[in-house]
Formats: sequence, C-alpha cells, structure tokens
Amino acid sequence: MSALAYVNGTITPLAEARLPLLDRGVFFGDGVYDTLFSINGRLHAPERHFRRLAHSLHETGIGAISIEEIESALAELSGRCEHRDVDFYIQVTRGVQPARAHTWKEEPRPTLIITAQERHDLPAEHYARGVTLFSHTDLRWGRCDIKSVNLLPNVMARQKAAAAGGYDALLVRDGHVTEGSGSSVLIVEEGVLVAPPLSYEILPSITREIVLELAREAGVPVRLERRTLEQYIQADEAMVLSTKVGVLPVRAIDSVELPTERPLIERLRALYQETVQALAE
Amino acid sequence: MSALAYVNGTITPLAEARLPLLDRGVFFGDGVYDTLFSINGRLHAPERHFRRLAHSLHETGIGAISIEEIESALAELSGRCEHRDVDFYIQVTRGVQPARAHTWKEEPRPTLIITAQERHDLPAEHYARGVTLFSHTDLRWGRCDIKSVNLLPNVMARQKAAAAGGYDALLVRDGHVTEGSGSSVLIVEEGVLVAPPLSYEILPSITREIVLELAREAGVPVRLERRTLEQYIQADEAMVLSTKVGVLPVRAIDSVELPTERPLIERLRALYQETVQALAE
Repeated sequence: MSALAYVNGTITPLAEARLPLLDRGVFFGDGVYDTLFSINGRLHAPERHFRRLAHSLHETGIGAISIEEIESALAELSGRCEHRDVDFYIQVTRGVQPARAHTWKEEPRPTLIITAQERHDLPAEHYARGVTLFSHTDLRWGRCDIKSVNLLPNVMARQKAAAAGGYDALLVRDGHVTEGSGSSVLIVEEGVLVAPPLSYEILPSITREIVLELAREAGVPVRLERRTLEQYIQADEAMVLSTKVGVLPVRAIDSVELPTERPLIERLRALYQETVQALAE
Repeated sequence: MSALAYVNGTITPLAEARLPLLDRGVFFGDGVYDTLFSINGRLHAPERHFRRLAHSLHETGIGAISIEEIESALAELSGRCEHRDVDFYIQVTRGVQPARAHTWKEEPRPTLIITAQERHDLPAEHYARGVTLFSHTDLRWGRCDIKSVNLLPNVMARQKAAAAGGYDALLVRDGHVTEGSGSSVLIVEEGVLVAPPLSYEILPSITREIVLELAREAGVPVRLERRTLEQYIQADEAMVLSTKVGVLPVRAIDSVELPTERPLIERLRALYQETVQALAE
C-alpha cells in the first residue's frame, strides 16, 4: 500500500500531501498528535488514544474541533486503506492564519491531519535480543504530559542515541529517569514493576497504562516511584514501551549489559500481545 | 504589497505557499528561524542575525545548508519585493523524509523558507504609553539559546497575556525572570541597566545586544545579573526589546504600574532608532 494522508477532508498519497506555509504547525509547532494502530481493520484501544488526544487539545486550548469529527475522518481514511494492519498518525494544529503572529483574536479553524501506513512488526530478533539505550539530559519543556509536535529535544536526543547504535535515548531530569525520547520505560526490581509516577514530566503512555493494568490483574506488584539512572542500570529487567513497538526488552543502558533472563518482561509482553492478537480473531 | 514566500527556490504569494506534509518541520518542529528587517532596501544588522542563525543550525545539527546560500535566497526574494521597508522571516527545517521517523541515516536536504512582508512601525502611542506584561511560569525547554520553531510554550504564555490585555508574557524560571515569550527584557535600577546573563535560558537577542553596546558606549553602567519578578515590578524602568518592535517601554507588570518617567529608556531608544534611521539616509 502506498501510504495515505488526510488533510482537512482531502485524501491523497502521503508523499503528495501539502500544508499551507501559514499553518501554525509550521511556524510555531502549534499542534498536538497521537498515534494508534489497527489489526484486521480493528483499532487497538481507540478510546484511550482519543482520551489522551482530547487532553492534549484541551491543555493547549485548541478547541474548535471535536473528537467525533476526528473519529469520523479516521474512519473515512481507514476505509480507503488497502491493508488491514495500519499505523495511524493524527495531528491537529491550531490552523492557518493570514500572517505569522504568536497570538490570535479569533481562533483559526484547526487543521486535521491523519496519515495511514501499513503496520509492520519490528524484526523478531529485536524482541529476543533486546535494545540498547543511551542516557541523555532531559531538555524538554515543562508539560511533557501534552503530546505536542514540539519534538526537537526528543529528536536531538534520539538521533544521538541512534548515531551511537542505540534504539532510543533514556532521558534523565534532575537526577531521575523520566522516559525515552519516543517511548516510556519500566524496570523490574526484585519482582516489583517500577515506573515513574504520572506528572508533567512524562507522557501518559497508553502501552504503559495497559501493561500496568495487566500486571496488577496478574498479581504483579507495581510501584510508581522515581529511580536514578544508576538504579535503571542495576535493574533486574528493563523495558521500553510504545504504541509502535509494544513491549520491548532493554539489553543494555550506556553500554552496561542487563541480565539476559527477563521472566517478568516476557510474561507482560505475552499478556500485552494477547490484547493485540485478540483483534485478529 | 502582497506578502511573498520563498520555499526552496520557488517564490509565490505567501498565502499560496505550501510545504510537503512530510517535512520534519510539520511533524517534529524540527527547524530553526530568525527574523530581520530592511529599511530603504538595506538590512539592519544582517551579520548579527546570520551569526545567530548559524548558531541555531549548528547546535541542532542541521548541517547541509550554508549561510551564503541563505543570504543569496534572501537577496533574490528582496529583489522581488515592491517595498523597501520589509520584515523578513527565515526558517530552515531539517527537510523532507520518505516517512515520519524521529531519526535519519542520511540527513535530508534542509528546507529553506523565507517570507517577506511590508514593515510597519507599531502605533506611536505604544512607545509613548508603554505596554503591559503578565508574569507566567517559563515552561520552555533547556536550550532557549537556540531559536527553534518549538514555540508552543511561548504561544500559550503569550496568548494568556494577550487575553488579559497584555502585550507579552514575562517568563519566570526557578524564581528569576528570563525574558518575554517573544522579546527580551531589561530593567533600570538606580541608573544601572540590568539584564539577565546570556545562558541556555534565554535567546541572545540582537536588539538587546545592540542596546547594551550603545549603553556601554554612552557610559551607562550595565550589570548582567538575574532578578526576581518582585525586583522587576519594583524597577525604576523596564523595557522589552525585539527585532519587530525595537525598544518598547513597559508600563505595568501584573497590573502594577511602573514609574511614568523613563529617562534611560528614552535615551537608549533614541540611540537604537539612530541605527535604524541611518539605513534610510
């Protein structure tokens, strides 16, 4: 399938899609986004993703668009997709202005962008071997709970990690680990699943939310506490999580190898995969 | 004059200019910018603006474009402008990718965007009466010395100030004032010009740089030190500075009126205006 793009009602091949230069997304990064996927034509956890997108829209004051409108556009684009396993990317910007200006008197009409690309799993060896992370100072802004397109600090940290052969950066703010630049992180300490508490410092990851629920249902103790980089490196197990990759074990942090036995990660990964697999049946 | 836009070699009316959706500027805010102006067809302080743009490009690793290339495009666009007093906006993004991905193996070719609009001075009463500021927590990232298009925290702070009838927000980080959301700030304390020291917390404002040089040349004592919001409110004089407005007196901060006599601001504003006026002669 060639990838598709929906921009304010018009569907085209992704590579041909255009945006007005005067869109506030271009000049100010004045927009928010979310990602979700379908398996067998059925969306995974859509209500959770739309709840998060509604939070991002509300907190940035991008008001003149409804979740219903976005769902309807997503359904329209989905109906045009040749494939049934699809990664969707949804972005809403504050819209087009007649001239570049930080502020507005009358809020412009938001721009709705959705892209659709065939979904492919990561190579199985990534899950078997695990991935490597490189620590980086968390330079992001003070409202990381908003999924905004102001991603330059994420890009800079992740590119540095990638150039060193890593999968993602592991961000550290004021001495404690927050998350990856494009994923959230969890560790296991003596059978306890430890995750940073939700705050303005991290994105409320949907994959993490589901995994924590599955862990609690399975009787795995969960602790929401901050940990230092040193504690991450000394963890029994560590994982990164994202909508794109699901649950992915961490092999090494800053070139220090973690244990190769990952009993709890494997168990949680299997439980999470069941929620994905259920869509295929 | 209808405003013009240059995008990678193509010049169109600004309102007709388009950008590929797959430009990293759209998905990641992965770009930097600068603004400058011409009077009588002559650029004001271009070498300073290009030096700052080079810094932004270097620090973000957007490498595959030269300042000479940008200067040449600016000259081409300038030649197409009907007017002689023009505000230019220059943005460079990391370029277009075949699909949305945080990282890249081969750096894409950067996208060069320049817009040109006729320059108008603010109404004279703004300079006579002064403007009002409203304090706001500085939520921006850890590298505000880079003039990036990740401007969502600036937009949110400034819109809140504008909704309250203010000109700009006055940003406060860890108890000290950094700058405005779209301008830098200076105060006068007993005849001494006080400005926050350059750091990752503030943009190296060109207007501020020029004004500080003019002050030193005129024998005005200058101190580069942090100050609290309380100290700003109690200042003898306060001003905001930007390429767009030059030197603009502050009348009130958080609804507290400052003294209406502003001898040092008026002196510095006159000196700064001479550097602008010199272009017209």
